[in-house]
Amino acid sequence: MLDDAFPAAVPDAVRAALLAPMVDHHCQGPRRGDSPRSEFELLITGSAAPAPPGTTHFDTPVGAAVRRWCAPVLGLAPHASPAVYLSRRAELGGTEVNRRMLREAGISAFLVDTGDDGPGRLTPAETGRLAGAAADEIVRLERIEQEVAEAGLPAVRYSAVLREELAVRAARAAGLKSVAAHRYGLGAEPSRPSRGSVVAAAGRRIADPKRRLDDPVLARHLLWAAVDVARERGLPIQLHCGAGGPGPDAHRADPSPLAGFLRALAPLGVPVVLLDCYPHHRQAGHLANAFPNVLVDVGPALARAAAGAARIVAETLELVPFHKQLFGSGGRGAAESSYLGALYHRLGLARVLAERVAEGEWSAADAERVAHMIGSGNARRIYRL
Amino acid sequence: MLDDAFPAAVPDAVRAALLAPMVDHHCQGPRRGDSPRSEFELLITGSAAPAPPGTTHFDTPVGAAVRRWCAPVLGLAPHASPAVYLSRRAELGGTEVNRRMLREAGISAFLVDTGDDGPGRLTPAETGRLAGAAADEIVRLERIEQEVAEAGLPAVRYSAVLREELAVRAARAAGLKSVAAHRYGLGAEPSRPSRGSVVAAAGRRIADPKRRLDDPVLARHLLWAAVDVARERGLPIQLHCGAGGPGPDAHRADPSPLAGFLRALAPLGVPVVLLDCYPHHRQAGHLANAFPNVLVDVGPALARAAAGAARIVAETLELVPFHKQLFGSGGRGAAESSYLGALYHRLGLARVLAERVAEGEWSAADAERVAHMIGSGNARRIYRL
Amino acid sequence: MLDDAFPAAVPDAVRAALLAPMVDHHCQGPRRGDSPRSEFELLITGSAAPAPPGTTHFDTPVGAAVRRWCAPVLGLAPHASPAVYLSRRAELGGTEVNRRMLREAGISAFLVDTGDDGPGRLTPAETGRLAGAAADEIVRLERIEQEVAEAGLPAVRYSAVLREELAVRAARAAGLKSVAAHRYGLGAEPSRPSRGSVVAAAGRRIADPKRRLDDPVLARHLLWAAVDVARERGLPIQLHCGAGGPGPDAHRADPSPLAGFLRALAPLGVPVVLLDCYPHHRQAGHLANAFPNVLVDVGPALARAAAGAARIVAETLELVPFHKQLFGSGGRGAAESSYLGALYHRLGLARVLAERVAEGEWSAADAERVAHMIGSGNARRIYRL
Repeated sequence: MLDDAFPAAVPDAVRAALLAPMVDHHCQGPRRGDSPRSEFELLITGSAAPAPPGTTHFDTPVGAAVRRWCAPVLGLAPHASPAVYLSRRAELGGTEVNRRMLREAGISAFLVDTGDDGPGRLTPAETGRLAGAAADEIVRLERIEQEVAEAGLPAVRYSAVLREELAVRAARAAGLKSVAAHRYGLGAEPSRPSRGSVVAAAGRRIADPKRRLDDPVLARHLLWAAVDVARERGLPIQLHCGAGGPGPDAHRADPSPLAGFLRALAPLGVPVVLLDCYPHHRQAGHLANAFPNVLVDVGPALARAAAGAARIVAETLELVPFHKQLFGSGGRGAAESSYLGALYHRLGLARVLAERVAEGEWSAADAERVAHMIGSGNARRIYRL
Repeated sequence: MLDDAFPAAVPDAVRAALLAPMVDHHCQGPRRGDSPRSEFELLITGSAAPAPPGTTHFDTPVGAAVRRWCAPVLGLAPHASPAVYLSRRAELGGTEVNRRMLREAGISAFLVDTGDDGPGRLTPAETGRLAGAAADEIVRLERIEQEVAEAGLPAVRYSAVLREELAVRAARAAGLKSVAAHRYGLGAEPSRPSRGSVVAAAGRRIADPKRRLDDPVLARHLLWAAVDVARERGLPIQLHCGAGGPGPDAHRADPSPLAGFLRALAPLGVPVVLLDCYPHHRQAGHLANAFPNVLVDVGPALARAAAGAARIVAETLELVPFHKQLFGSGGRGAAESSYLGALYHRLGLARVLAERVAEGEWSAADAERVAHMIGSGNARRIYRL
Repeated sequence: MLDDAFPAAVPDAVRAALLAPMVDHHCQGPRRGDSPRSEFELLITGSAAPAPPGTTHFDTPVGAAVRRWCAPVLGLAPHASPAVYLSRRAELGGTEVNRRMLREAGISAFLVDTGDDGPGRLTPAETGRLAGAAADEIVRLERIEQEVAEAGLPAVRYSAVLREELAVRAARAAGLKSVAAHRYGLGAEPSRPSRGSVVAAAGRRIADPKRRLDDPVLARHLLWAAVDVARERGLPIQLHCGAGGPGPDAHRADPSPLAGFLRALAPLGVPVVLLDCYPHHRQAGHLANAFPNVLVDVGPALARAAAGAARIVAETLELVPFHKQLFGSGGRGAAESSYLGALYHRLGLARVLAERVAEGEWSAADAERVAHMIGSGNARRIYRL
């Protein structure tokens, strides 16, 4: 079905490479169980608020994509109305919908970020079982830090306990992820903070541990602690840079100010993946081109832009080396987002590759190889799968 | 004639929706009377300076568009030379040219920003009469503030008089517009300023009232006063964010730093339209997606980019919900800009919709509905027309 | 061969204009002699570090372009493997490769930036001889400043000697170039620094002259001294703005903060060319549209993006007046980069012009004229060739 939407000019070998199982290195476990319409609308768009009166979040690119592509996965005609879609979704039940979406996504391994985990979400293991795929964990740094801050330790022990805890969690994980890198000003000062400044900041943090980490010294300390652990265990670090959410700092998505931190990391050989940089994916491309250890993933932008995804794929391919681009669905909330992320990656890349081959710019073998590298090869290399 | 330029694949119903009369919620009254060549060149490009020796502002995308599309409206062949175009323009006279351009634009209602009004421009009522359309006023906040600052009041009365004046003017208007939001640093501090700080700043302002408003405290105070009035009267606020002019701060067009202000407004239910965000329209799209009260209009970028407009339309449709995008010509100066704004909106959207339908991504009914929403439906809803 | 890759719809006259010899106003002399694989990989991508283990810099857009387009220039089939390409390159020898690439680029005059010159690079005269073309020098301001700083002068003489030296070098040059404009904060304060502040800063500079210029006062002083010289001699100033290199500040590529400096220069009539602004070329377009003395060149982005270059050409044509856009290959390091810069400029522009003509937006004569202006006419006008 997806195959039918590829441009006719895609050579067979490229077609096969595009349809081959991929590694989704950037996703969360889907929501468990059923979702009423109001919740589903928020889940598919990543909005924090309901659509204004008289409007619906289905009137978005991703909403149109759910009706076009997810409806047939539930046995409906393409372009089903929202009401029909949600009714069929309820009829099948959340588990069956999740199963169908995850399997239809064509993924052989999920690397699942557990940072927002809870009883409402599938665990990595459950996600893998439902999808018939492998699954590993990506550990969220800020979550571990939160647990350490709330543990009632004296400030002088904060750093050592954080390091221990990171090491323990990293031993079972495929990678580490931070959502704080950009948020707390690595731009101004990327270097490892002094021990004294960390103890002082930890004292303030521990005195009021329920807040979200917002101290720039501790944010830097957390990242450098993660770098040490990542280096010991050969793990990549993911840095979330995207404008993909309604959070208080979601507009700070330009990864350019991270250049100083990335330069400091370059000699250490720790791969760093910039996640979800839209609309600053070209800046991310510059960083991936300039620094040997930097990789890029445009993540949820593809499912969000949906029918407009091919342009984002093409822009990312302007500068990012082929061995530094990763597929990640950015799936979170509804399992539809994982399916659509994979679908629009394949569809967008199919269009770009068809053009390259038709124009004689790349050989079919080149196009095939690029599809494999981005779809799974690069992830297998850096995550050592 | 425009219809002939639509891609052949546009379904009939979509074609009709694209050609239906639109609401132009973002324009100024056109210049009254004739314009000599030197003035006309500045009017069509928005430049403040003549083209360098040996060059002409007709050698721009919009200049080529005037020759291609406006020439036939004056009875000339497409691609008429600048000299022939200007000679025919002079022959017909400014009023007849304005009449033809405004009617050919296919607009049923103009919402006219009167902030730069003067005897040289058509009033909203004149614009409407000449176009055979409805016309309402958009009140420019900074203009009202300037009048209040120059009224010779004691500083303690500045705030109350400003509020009264805003309320009086808003009673007759369809919306409020600010050009100062971005200029004076809402990014750093979005909250309502204290009464004391306003009185202090008003004292300095009133002592030197001829300057353009450049005090960040008073700029914030003005916006929050406008928010109160907008809330009482159910009016939207337009925030100019574009790089569309040669003004001293025109390069500060990225709306991202407005996120804090937009978040503070979200619970109040006042619609905020980000105007003319090019080349930061994708960032505007993120804000429109993240905040329930935010809408987007790419305005004059379409007439300026002319033959390149379809890409901007497509990029805006990557993230902005369909119920949050508005058509606005950004027309100012020459009436040609209103006509071209409407034309390139229709032409650009025709190309994007034709692609979506041809690829099977959207049904024809979806495409038709999106064209109606952006062309007039969304404006009718938020401006309560 | 390039001609075969143009869209069939390109009218003959436009085709001829695209293939006419161009002025390359933005390049360096190619590397002299042979390059082993490890060096060649760095030269073509502008990376400072080798590709990570298991990968190659040939797996980039520009690497694919070398195999596609440069291989036939060396007598190989398109899409030759990296090993075959490098072996043939070694067989022919560096001089013959440079000769072929420079001649195949179709350039009638090179304006060669000598800022990174040394025995390993061809001089402007050698470049011209090998290419069978004219060649002139573009003087790098920071290099002259470095020589003056290292001359052991008293601080009070720094400014006068710098001015004299600039004047001497400018007398033999076609233009002046700065890489420091953006680096040292013209954004915050664009005006000419006071004599006292320059003497004070010069004292510190001369005491430690081996460092790269990093004092914002002296950076401004250097630029304003260059403006004086440029004005006397009718020379343009090039400001490097691009993200094209791995340098410590390469991510600061957005030219928007230069607006204040450009505004201050506008009345002086000195043409300023913003070089290599990708991915901020649309912001550069705004500045070129707003200020009469500003021109734009997207430079090495085209060879880097290679098969993706047409989109960058199209985006630049959204706002930049046709008389303000210049061709520059951005060629540096390997002569392949000069050839590919010219090739992708022609190919990208061919696609955009074919579209404009096919859509009826521009006449064939318009398209032909635009190709000539950007390819050579604008450079001949501002550099007075």
